[in-house]
Parts: sequence; C-alpha cells; structure tokens
Amino acid sequence: MTGKTAAAVATAAAAAMWRDDRACQALGMELMSVDLGCAEMAMTVQENMVNGHGICHGGYIFTLADSAFAYACNSRNLVTVAAGARIDFLRPAKLHDRLVASARVIHQGGRSGVYDVAVDDEAGKCIARFRGNSVTVGGALVEEAVSV
Amino acid sequence: MTGKTAAAVATAAAAAMWRDDRACQALGMELMSVDLGCAEMAMTVQENMVNGHGICHGGYIFTLADSAFAYACNSRNLVTVAAGARIDFLRPAKLHDRLVASARVIHQGGRSGVYDVAVDDEAGKCIARFRGNSVTVGGALVEEAVSV
Amino acid sequence: MTGKTAAAVATAAAAAMWRDDRACQALGMELMSVDLGCAEMAMTVQENMVNGHGICHGGYIFTLADSAFAYACNSRNLVTVAAGARIDFLRPAKLHDRLVASARVIHQGGRSGVYDVAVDDEAGKCIARFRGNSVTVGGALVEEAVSV
Amino acid sequence: MTGKTAAAVATAAAAAMWRDDRACQALGMELMSVDLGCAEMAMTVQENMVNGHGICHGGYIFTLADSAFAYACNSRNLVTVAAGARIDFLRPAKLHDRLVASARVIHQGGRSGVYDVAVDDEAGKCIARFRGNSVTVGGALVEEAVSV
Repeated sequence: MTGKTAAAVATAAAAAMWRDDRACQALGMELMSVDLGCAEMAMTVQENMVNGHGICHGGYIFTLADSAFAYACNSRNLVTVAAGARIDFLRPAKLHDRLVASARVIHQGGRSGVYDVAVDDEAGKCIARFRGNSVTVGGALVEEAVSV
Repeated sequence: MTGKTAAAVATAAAAAMWRDDRACQALGMELMSVDLGCAEMAMTVQENMVNGHGICHGGYIFTLADSAFAYACNSRNLVTVAAGARIDFLRPAKLHDRLVASARVIHQGGRSGVYDVAVDDEAGKCIARFRGNSVTVGGALVEEAVSV
Repeated sequence: MTGKTAAAVATAAAAAMWRDDRACQALGMELMSVDLGCAEMAMTVQENMVNGHGICHGGYIFTLADSAFAYACNSRNLVTVAAGARIDFLRPAKLHDRLVASARVIHQGGRSGVYDVAVDDEAGKCIARFRGNSVTVGGALVEEAVSV
Repeated sequence: MTGKTAAAVATAAAAAMWRDDRACQALGMELMSVDLGCAEMAMTVQENMVNGHGICHGGYIFTLADSAFAYACNSRNLVTVAAGARIDFLRPAKLHDRLVASARVIHQGGRSGVYDVAVDDEAGKCIARFRGNSVTVGGALVEEAVSV
C-alpha cells in the first residue's frame, strides 16, 4: 500500500468513526488531520469542564488525548480499542484554552500498539503527555475498495 | 488526630471541593462517601458519553476515576493535585450503566501519594483500574477549627 | 478445574519455568509460593545491586516485581509474557534488605491480564508497587496430564 | 548558563554519579554520552540475564533504561531520584545483543520531571520504551565552581 493510499484509507476510516462518535462531537472536538499511525484533534476548554478557579478537569484533557489516540490507532482500518494509557499532567489548562492533541504511533505489532500523544495549548506549551496501549480486535472500519 | 476527627476533616474538605466542582456536577456525579485516604463516586453513562454502538468513551471512565482520586487525595485537607495516572480498561461500559469508582490510598508521603481506584458497574464487574500519582502543593481546603 | 487442581497446575508450571530461569536464579531469588493467579518471590539486596550509599538500584526492585508477575501470569499453564508495567518507588531498599514481592491477578481475560505486585521489606514496609500487563501467546508450559 | 556550560556541568555530575555507581558498573554498562536533560547508556545482554531460551529478562532492560533516565534527570546537578516509571516491552532482546538506551527530558519543572527513554538494539530496532517520573530532592552532585 503506498503512502498516498494509506492516507486515503486512514481518512476514510476516520470519517466512518467520526459519523458514529457522538461523545467527541458533544465535546466540540475537531479532527484536524489523520494519516497512517497519526491523528491531530482539537478541543476548547468550556465552562462545564472547569472548576470554580477556571482550571480544566484532568479528565477532559485525558479524553482529548484518548480520542486522538483512537483515531491514530484505527488508521490502519482495523478495528482497534484502547487497552490502557498513562497520562502525565504537566501544566494546568484553563477556561477557553484551545488544546491540540497530536497522536503518533511508537510501535504497531500485529495486534498490540503503543502510541504517544502530546497535548499542547495554542502557545505551544505542553499541557500533558499521554502514552496509550491499543489492541486490534479485527474487522475493517470501511471497505477498502470503496474507501480508496 | 483521631479516626473520627480525620473523617470529619475529610468530609469538610470534600464539601468545600464539591461546592466549587462544576465539572463533576455537570457530569451528574455523586460523591457517595469520603474518609481519610478514600472516596467513592458514582456516575451514570449518558447519551453524550457513548458512541453509536452505545459504548462509553474511555475518557469518561477516566474522568470518574480521576474525580474519586481527587477527593481521596485531598482528604487530608491539604491542597493536592494529580500529577499523572495510569488506567487499564478491562470491560466496556454501556449507556445507562451506573458506575462506581472507589479510591483508596496506597502510599502517602509528605508530598507524593499513590492511590488506586477501581471502577465497577452495578453488577460488581470491574470496568477499569486506575492508579494515580498526587502531589501536595500545600495550603488547607478548609479551616480545621471550623470544619471539625 | 477445582482449586486444588488449579494449584497443582500452577505449581507444575512454575517448576518448569524455574528450571529454565537462569536470570532469577543468578539473582538469588526464591520462589516462595505460587497458586492460580498469584506468586510470591523473595530476594536479598546484594553488594552489586547498590550504589556507594548502600541504596538499591530501582532496576533490581523492578526485576524482582517483574519476576513475581511472570510466575503469577503463567500460573494458568499458558505461555504468557509481559507487555508492559508501571512501577512506583515508595521507599528506598538498602543493602542486605530481604524483599518480598507478592503478585496477584487483578483481571485475566482470554489473552490480556492485569496483575498487581507489592514489594515489601521484612518489616512489612512497602518499598514499591508494580502493575503489569500480560499477553498470553498460547501453548502450555507443562502437559497437564503429567503435571497433575 | 550557556549550552556549553550546561554540558560541562552535566558531564561533571555524571562523572560523580558514575564513581559511586557499583550497580551499573557491575552490569557492564557504558555511559556513552550525557548532556543537559539527556544521556545515552549501553549494555550487552549477558548469560546471567537470560532464560534458557536466550531471551533477556525484562528486568534488565528496565534497569538499563532506568539508569539512562537517572543520568539524564541528574544532569542539572541537582540530586534527583526516580519516583516511578512505565515500560512497554516491544521486542525481545537476546543473548549478546548490545542495547542502547537514549534518555531525554520531556518536561522538567522545579521538582518534577518526565523523561522518555528508548531502548534499541544495534540494528536500530526498538526493544522497549520507558517513561520515567523524577523528583528533585535538592543538593548538588558536584560543586559547580570546581566542575566547570
């Protein structure tokens, strides 16, 4: 599969996931880009994500990172789920911050994958680092003949 | 500080946190119990937390676990934040499942703490396991003379 | 399989692993007990494991925990490997300390498992906590008809 | 402090650590390079590190990664210890493999740091990925006036 084809398959798989992805849509996430083994996703910190001091709940930062991870690890067009992840919180995110999560593959075996996600704010400051473990459960997200 | 006093301080600290905690309130979480080094929190999986197949986004499971962790690690009435956490996803959670996260201290040093959180469904099946690292940044959540 | 049979299989599988396990033997480890989903292993901190201040290298504490994990996750008599692990170092271990690592299963699916290991010193103080992820690659360690 | 000075301080701090580091010396490790926030360390897999099939115990891979991490996070010349780490095992290492661990800082706050370590074999294949959390406990490893 050429790089161009891989990117087209990744795009088609992501589109199929997104149609179905009420949770990410409800959080106002934006899928900025996707390619084989990587994905970028953005989210703006909203009123219902912060405490009284305007600090974003870490759970929403994780949710953004986990979403970018999901699109990256499904980009082979094989149904893949998160088995686990570690997140390190480096700086607080604040109300109205626009956060961007950039996921990329570290290692993809047949079934098991390891992916890194950096969550940065608009100034490029690192808010969190996430490392996720994926398991491919099989089956295609989209038919490749159709998608490419 | 006696066990009874510790529990009263933990309860007062939790009440002060909760008043301020728009994020947990907006997710319909319920703080079921809190004591020195532990906390139990519940949440029901809602429509906006699932994908088209009715499977809960892992980010919301993390958010519940992270919230129980926050109440447990602040139960000493010293302002404490999450530095990082690892979650293992064991079974999917589904639409309308009521999840309970039970957090308890594994080790609490002067500043650094390690806490375990089990997230179970109502049938008692384990949905996820979470281990969080906390850092105490100092300052009290409530005045103890008032709280006890 | 009854509990008694499970324990006998676990014991036979552990014996087969141990015969082959030059690394654990070379470190002077002792397999104290094994049962379905759990194992206890001990090691004394030796001169070549410490720095000039007599503090044990964290790598050896991890190695002990990882070894107990290996025996616990192979106790079903299905060849199983470590996919990853997280360790939290809670207190330093010192020269001549006898450390005991107690591993137990948290969740075992068909292929993926999560195991906890506590590493304590002789006084019962917790030195480290470890959580490991296993993957079963299949095949038996011992023939069950022979082993039981 | 200029980059050149930072490198000189890192080198002096590493030299002071190494003199004291019986554990790394006993494993035949080689400190290949060190600079502010990074370090490279090599180790050859020996007979006493493998099982009967010639596969290296994961504990030794962790120990190599943890050692590179230690030199990287102490490169500021402030005494710093490992608080915890996560390792993902990607491929087996074998008897006589020469492994290189490359550690680099991801984030260094006043006291808390996050470091990544890649462990590769000579062919450049990734054997393991490690992410460590450090805590700076204060005090200098070497007097800077002397060291620079």
